[in-house]
Amino acid sequence: MQLTGVSIIGNRRGERSASSFVAVNPATGEALAGEFHCASAADTEAAARLAEEAFGIYGQWHGAKRRALLNRMAESLEGHAATIVERAHLETGLTATRLQGELARTCFQLRQYGESAATGLFAGARIDRAPPSRKPQPKPDLRSMLVPVGPVAVFGASNFPLAYSVAGGDTASALAAGCPVVVKAHRAHPGTSELVGCLLQQAALECGAPAGVFSLLFDAGFEVGTMLVKHPLIKAVGFTGSRSGGRALMDLAAERPEPIPVFAEMSSINPVFLLGGALKKRAAEIATGLHGSVTLGVGQFCTNPGLVFVESGEAARDFLATLGNLIKATPAGTMLTAGICAAYCAGLERLSRAAGVNLAAAGRANSDVSKTRAGVALFLTRVGTFLANRELMNEVFGPCTLVVECTSHAEMLAAARRLEGQLTATIHATPEELTATRELAAVLVTKAGRLVFNGFPTGVEVTHAMTHGGPYPATSDGRSTSVGTRAIERFLRPVTFQDFPAALLPLELQENNPLGLARLVDGVIQTVSGP
Amino acid sequence: MQLTGVSIIGNRRGERSASSFVAVNPATGEALAGEFHCASAADTEAAARLAEEAFGIYGQWHGAKRRALLNRMAESLEGHAATIVERAHLETGLTATRLQGELARTCFQLRQYGESAATGLFAGARIDRAPPSRKPQPKPDLRSMLVPVGPVAVFGASNFPLAYSVAGGDTASALAAGCPVVVKAHRAHPGTSELVGCLLQQAALECGAPAGVFSLLFDAGFEVGTMLVKHPLIKAVGFTGSRSGGRALMDLAAERPEPIPVFAEMSSINPVFLLGGALKKRAAEIATGLHGSVTLGVGQFCTNPGLVFVESGEAARDFLATLGNLIKATPAGTMLTAGICAAYCAGLERLSRAAGVNLAAAGRANSDVSKTRAGVALFLTRVGTFLANRELMNEVFGPCTLVVECTSHAEMLAAARRLEGQLTATIHATPEELTATRELAAVLVTKAGRLVFNGFPTGVEVTHAMTHGGPYPATSDGRSTSVGTRAIERFLRPVTFQDFPAALLPLELQENNPLGLARLVDGVIQTVSGP
Repeated sequence: MQLTGVSIIGNRRGERSASSFVAVNPATGEALAGEFHCASAADTEAAARLAEEAFGIYGQWHGAKRRALLNRMAESLEGHAATIVERAHLETGLTATRLQGELARTCFQLRQYGESAATGLFAGARIDRAPPSRKPQPKPDLRSMLVPVGPVAVFGASNFPLAYSVAGGDTASALAAGCPVVVKAHRAHPGTSELVGCLLQQAALECGAPAGVFSLLFDAGFEVGTMLVKHPLIKAVGFTGSRSGGRALMDLAAERPEPIPVFAEMSSINPVFLLGGALKKRAAEIATGLHGSVTLGVGQFCTNPGLVFVESGEAARDFLATLGNLIKATPAGTMLTAGICAAYCAGLERLSRAAGVNLAAAGRANSDVSKTRAGVALFLTRVGTFLANRELMNEVFGPCTLVVECTSHAEMLAAARRLEGQLTATIHATPEELTATRELAAVLVTKAGRLVFNGFPTGVEVTHAMTHGGPYPATSDGRSTSVGTRAIERFLRPVTFQDFPAALLPLELQENNPLGLARLVDGVIQTVSGP
Repeated sequence: MQLTGVSIIGNRRGERSASSFVAVNPATGEALAGEFHCASAADTEAAARLAEEAFGIYGQWHGAKRRALLNRMAESLEGHAATIVERAHLETGLTATRLQGELARTCFQLRQYGESAATGLFAGARIDRAPPSRKPQPKPDLRSMLVPVGPVAVFGASNFPLAYSVAGGDTASALAAGCPVVVKAHRAHPGTSELVGCLLQQAALECGAPAGVFSLLFDAGFEVGTMLVKHPLIKAVGFTGSRSGGRALMDLAAERPEPIPVFAEMSSINPVFLLGGALKKRAAEIATGLHGSVTLGVGQFCTNPGLVFVESGEAARDFLATLGNLIKATPAGTMLTAGICAAYCAGLERLSRAAGVNLAAAGRANSDVSKTRAGVALFLTRVGTFLANRELMNEVFGPCTLVVECTSHAEMLAAARRLEGQLTATIHATPEELTATRELAAVLVTKAGRLVFNGFPTGVEVTHAMTHGGPYPATSDGRSTSVGTRAIERFLRPVTFQDFPAALLPLELQENNPLGLARLVDGVIQTVSGP
């Protein structure tokens, strides 16, 4: 597999434009092999048009055919795992072990979403039969199901070069839904993107999919992304990244003559609440778990716990001492890009200077932007300071956390009520703390997409019941998730067929239920065909 | 029941502000009894705050309690039907018969959505059990369900003073979802709004709901609506009305520091395609049906068919002759407001002047803005003219329609491809026209929320399988419906509970399935509790 550095426009390649960029190894600061050419306006236009053409065909593929495509994509990625991981490691500084795990997750995700398409999990079939006897008018026969919205633009994420990039969750869910995808590769890992993109396009060809079902565009700046989001043939957007980036796309999409939904997963500080009883019982265990969660992947997870509320007391002091020692023993780690590392260092600086906030412990080595290395840090403050300074709620993307001491459950509740939208919220408590936990959980349900009990927020399972979402600014639309099979629903819309003849009804809605779907028939879930 | 003319802020009344307005009888142009005071900024603020307070309690009510509230509301409206219909007739010019039907529909809707809440139809419960054996980490227990988003602002519609206003579909679906509602009454029927609002608030009191679960604000202008949509405690918006009004609210919501979803049902011309075979078999029947659909309620339905594509030929000429005669025999009708009538007349004027468009028939009396009366009109053009002039796709709200002659199925398809998003699209065809119908339906599925076969689009059933939505500009978000039980989902978001102890899980997610819900357990729909 050779890198060409040009965009993939369906089954052909884009222009070798004059505007180009290279990938940088964050561990060394050196440029990696390969020159990547920014997609031209003509390339972007062609990708959108091909996607629209493909939609006319691919959008009508049955679920089993979509599954075959997604399975083929997964197989193909697995067949080239070593090559992909090698390049991704060079481009991101993430370890080979982590990247192998991420590739496995990416393939699992493609297959699970394909399986959901084949089994009709998200068909949403509903049938209301006509009772011809109704007065004054007979009631029509009404049958509805979910259909794909159209071509989707996907923005690759820097922190998951595989699972949330070219073949990641947004691509997998859009393809499962029946939507062609145009990916804007993240500029930090263009080689990985091209390798993966070639395999996806090859899989599409092998499965007889129309060429435009998948395209991949390179860009070092914002032009291509902006053009995609504004393009009238693009009907939805998937994005994982910064709050400012996500908001910019939301604003662009909202200003279109035809506004479209943007599903942006943006920022979250993932508050953790440690109740006194739990600390008393498990101070060291919680400290160890939290330390692992804060430092995992050099803190570069959307679910990284950046805010920890502790009920003060002796147990809290034990917990802080243990956590501080763990932090002090932690080496610095290579971050994804120099830009991310610089932003992290600026965030540490901001916290260090904030009135009433103290650095409680720092890692074995300081951060070093010139080497893209981040040192771990633990900050401490009191709840009064936290409530008085909204800036302390801003995400610092990287391996640091801010512990906030509370003297009562009431103070914890007050802090919880002040939080912005979050991807996750975590509570550690004992059975004896049930009442306090219940109150806290009731508040946190309104703030977060996932509530974790006696665990840690990092580690997002790809399952049916997962929610990786949450009220703004965690995401652009708290009614969505970007992980788990419910993510597919983002790219679907309901359509009702009224009094349609059997020959014209989609399989999902035919009387004899040929696909064996669970359908809502006259208000009752039926899993076999009706009488 | 006495009209007081002041806003309803939970269980108290708003200010008797200096800024006030009256309702006008459109049939006479005379002011009706009652002076209505615009809600002050303090009133609006209080309503939003009360709604947020109420959300903390009402959002946790079980479905059966919500059903009891919605049922009580329906009973109460039925108990005062005569009073409500009398006032609504005076304020809207709609007939008592129509309004009695609309009230019945409103009550049916409240009860159906309440029933859906009680049976957990939209709970969306999913359980992925933990297989502790998984390597390298044990998988957590994940359980997700849909929870209410928070307080919802609802804008009453002019054309459905009951079913899409104070106690209408948006209010019913938000309350069923668990969201408190603040309604901005439509200024054209404030008396009807107050009567209904008082009954809803009284029902809330009787059912022990927190006061802020329902408020109703009066305004003659845009201040109150703007403040509501921008209010940080409001989490979603429901609106039925004009494209310009809906878009203004969308823009306001998108510009908020925390953007929120707006569900606006705005404009649609509801294209009807009459294939040659169907015209040959049923020219007169189709003409009669279409005439009824165009003139129903003086054409003031969102699903009014404003565009009819006919396959030209002898049968089309018969159809046009019959339709023309029916139109000529149709008397003028009273429209809802002078403003709507003026806009209708301007629309007729625009069509009359459009190059290549001819007035084919007009009703028995001309439109008369001074008497708020609209005359029926039938316009005729050719597909080439239609394709060349995008203005012909703009909705003219009222009892007129534009027939577009096509000489082939290909021309019909080309026209279909050019359409904007629609609430509905209709096809009349014979079994022999299956292939052409299939092609046309495939295009129309991408354009509309509901496809009608051999019928007419007016008449929107409140059922599980109904979609009253469609791509922009039919609605703000083609992934939603404002009619049918799926409308409730607009006001819900998913939340996942990870490793939660049984005592803290909502009933919907408890292991023994106490509510007997259909749940997705490890990827399989189960309607009883697991082993």
